[in-house]
Amino acid sequence: MPISAALRRVTAEPVRAPHPLPGFARSTVDGYAVRAADTYGASEGLPGYLAVTGAVTMGAAPDVTVIPGAAVSMPTGGAIPPGADAVVMIEYTAETMPGTIEVVRPVAPGEGVVRADEDAAEGKEIIPNGSVLRPQDLGMLAAAGVTSVLVHARPVVMIFSTGDEVVPPDTRMLKPGQVRDATASALAALIADAGGEPVHGGIVSDDPGALEKALRAALPASDVIIVSAGSSVGTRDETANAVAALGPPGIWCHGLAIKPGKPTLLAECGTGADGTPGIPVIGLPGNPRSALVVFRLIGMPLIRLVGGCDTPPPEPSTRAVLSRDLASATGRLDVVQVKVSGGVATPLFGASALLSVLTEADGYIVIPEAATGLDAGTEVTVTLYA
Amino acid sequence: MPISAALRRVTAEPVRAPHPLPGFARSTVDGYAVRAADTYGASEGLPGYLAVTGAVTMGAAPDVTVIPGAAVSMPTGGAIPPGADAVVMIEYTAETMPGTIEVVRPVAPGEGVVRADEDAAEGKEIIPNGSVLRPQDLGMLAAAGVTSVLVHARPVVMIFSTGDEVVPPDTRMLKPGQVRDATASALAALIADAGGEPVHGGIVSDDPGALEKALRAALPASDVIIVSAGSSVGTRDETANAVAALGPPGIWCHGLAIKPGKPTLLAECGTGADGTPGIPVIGLPGNPRSALVVFRLIGMPLIRLVGGCDTPPPEPSTRAVLSRDLASATGRLDVVQVKVSGGVATPLFGASALLSVLTEADGYIVIPEAATGLDAGTEVTVTLYA
Repeated sequence: MPISAALRRVTAEPVRAPHPLPGFARSTVDGYAVRAADTYGASEGLPGYLAVTGAVTMGAAPDVTVIPGAAVSMPTGGAIPPGADAVVMIEYTAETMPGTIEVVRPVAPGEGVVRADEDAAEGKEIIPNGSVLRPQDLGMLAAAGVTSVLVHARPVVMIFSTGDEVVPPDTRMLKPGQVRDATASALAALIADAGGEPVHGGIVSDDPGALEKALRAALPASDVIIVSAGSSVGTRDETANAVAALGPPGIWCHGLAIKPGKPTLLAECGTGADGTPGIPVIGLPGNPRSALVVFRLIGMPLIRLVGGCDTPPPEPSTRAVLSRDLASATGRLDVVQVKVSGGVATPLFGASALLSVLTEADGYIVIPEAATGLDAGTEVTVTLYA
Repeated sequence: MPISAALRRVTAEPVRAPHPLPGFARSTVDGYAVRAADTYGASEGLPGYLAVTGAVTMGAAPDVTVIPGAAVSMPTGGAIPPGADAVVMIEYTAETMPGTIEVVRPVAPGEGVVRADEDAAEGKEIIPNGSVLRPQDLGMLAAAGVTSVLVHARPVVMIFSTGDEVVPPDTRMLKPGQVRDATASALAALIADAGGEPVHGGIVSDDPGALEKALRAALPASDVIIVSAGSSVGTRDETANAVAALGPPGIWCHGLAIKPGKPTLLAECGTGADGTPGIPVIGLPGNPRSALVVFRLIGMPLIRLVGGCDTPPPEPSTRAVLSRDLASATGRLDVVQVKVSGGVATPLFGASALLSVLTEADGYIVIPEAATGLDAGTEVTVTLYA
């Protein structure tokens, strides 16, 4: 991938510096390249005097050597001439006579200088394998002359929606009992955020066998499959039956100790494009809010992992004080959406079917399995929706 | 913009619900639609008995009315039939005889029901103007049948690099004194992160007038211009001269009380594509690390603002304890890169020219202007590089 298109892609091999970086000793200041020993003891009261024997030009090799008692004029970033081991800042010099400067402060060897291999020694790993490439990483690759980089393919994540009540978002007029497919659009965005490539498989009818057929057809072209199930028990059972029919390894679990998000199915099914057994399948709850909460906690890390990234990048978060008591059952992880203002987190409540709870929220807090709830005034970490 | 391509785009108008959402009263559970009054007093010891007079089908209008003493079978998400005001969960019922259920718990009116306008009343603002669209916002738009949305254009951000020492990243062999242009690649990524569209203007030579000519040509097609200046005083002066020559409003400031990043120039110049006077111009320091630090603090918020977003989305951050004392001068904001491990933030040091300080860092801390430094053990907020 060219580095211009590699932001947030995951490296599939370590990248090493092909040569020392920056490649030559550079000045970090405007001033004079000197032999440090020639400046020892220099002070305002008793300046040292040095003969200016040349000037370094930006972007060019120095054409002068610094001999004892001499100084060479340096721009910031210029190449240190042979013989010099330090640069004295222009602020600590004065050109008292043409061709002569006085130096009013001593410099130590190495002062005002970046070594030729200070940014990276030749062969040093500058970007580890499995890195999610950040802006500065692309800068480092450019500095090293590495203009393309081996990255993992984006995992293809197929999204199916089920439920006889679900109609496409572009349905203008709803019949009574119908709802538009909100979850698939939000899932596609979360999949993209996790580095995956979302593919809409469409809405599958609740006819027996329809989902199994759709899943079987999708398996060879999918790295992960997400079924956004209808909300009724019937469509959830249909998902489990269809997944089970795809063959081993099969269903891992059906039901998670998470609220909202309990009716979640996790499975590995069939054979992938490259012959890998076990394409991960996640059957999500039918309620949009439940589905999106579970997908953040389980689906996104899974997609990152399939995409070669085992350490997900950090999520935005903030500390806040809880505005009221929150009850929770032990043995169950509770996810509660909150608004955050002035350091106070105010919980939002509502049915799992309501998307407005998610759109009004700034983020969410997690009440761990062991807790029976949180008291008002507790300091909590809010994971922010970015 | 179709919602499938609108993730993180900035809305240019508020979006209102075209009709109530979900649009009909829905069940939140599997069970029976009832008149709540018919269940009052029901208990395990003294169940209530109701006649099952029908069943609601998913996605269809109910074809039955719930009369006193009656119950209608409901799937989760189904439309509440006329006459009913609550749904009793299947877990609290038993079909003791065909056509009759016993109810062992009372329900209150509204229990087990999402109202027809509970997610949004008709005309309610579901997405405010100036929002950065998040995954759940796209879900809400889909639910409302709003499949395309008016968004701000991405600001076109022109990047110029200057400095006779700077050569393109694809330069295989460097001559002594040359460095590849690392800053432009990293800037392009940060611009994209801020919602802008980066355009590489290329490397401009230090010839007098060359930068002015390039800037003048770029103005009509740019919303923001970034000059990544050479590191020597000469090229910095050249940037200031070129910007000044473009005419009013002109230079706002030249030099910021930030370390690293002091030699930063902020200006408004010339006339934009639509006749707007004053295209923002940022002249960045020549050292890559300084340039990228300043660009995060000043350039990214500016690009977001030009792109219609005045409340930038939250950045990832974490709390950590400082591993060692950090000195700082008052009256100057200090940005220090850190590695974070086990809750401890370890500062990284090195010349402003070194990119490796940025690539090795997990994030940075800001020492405010008023502070004279931070003691080891201080709890600090680390803004994480995502």
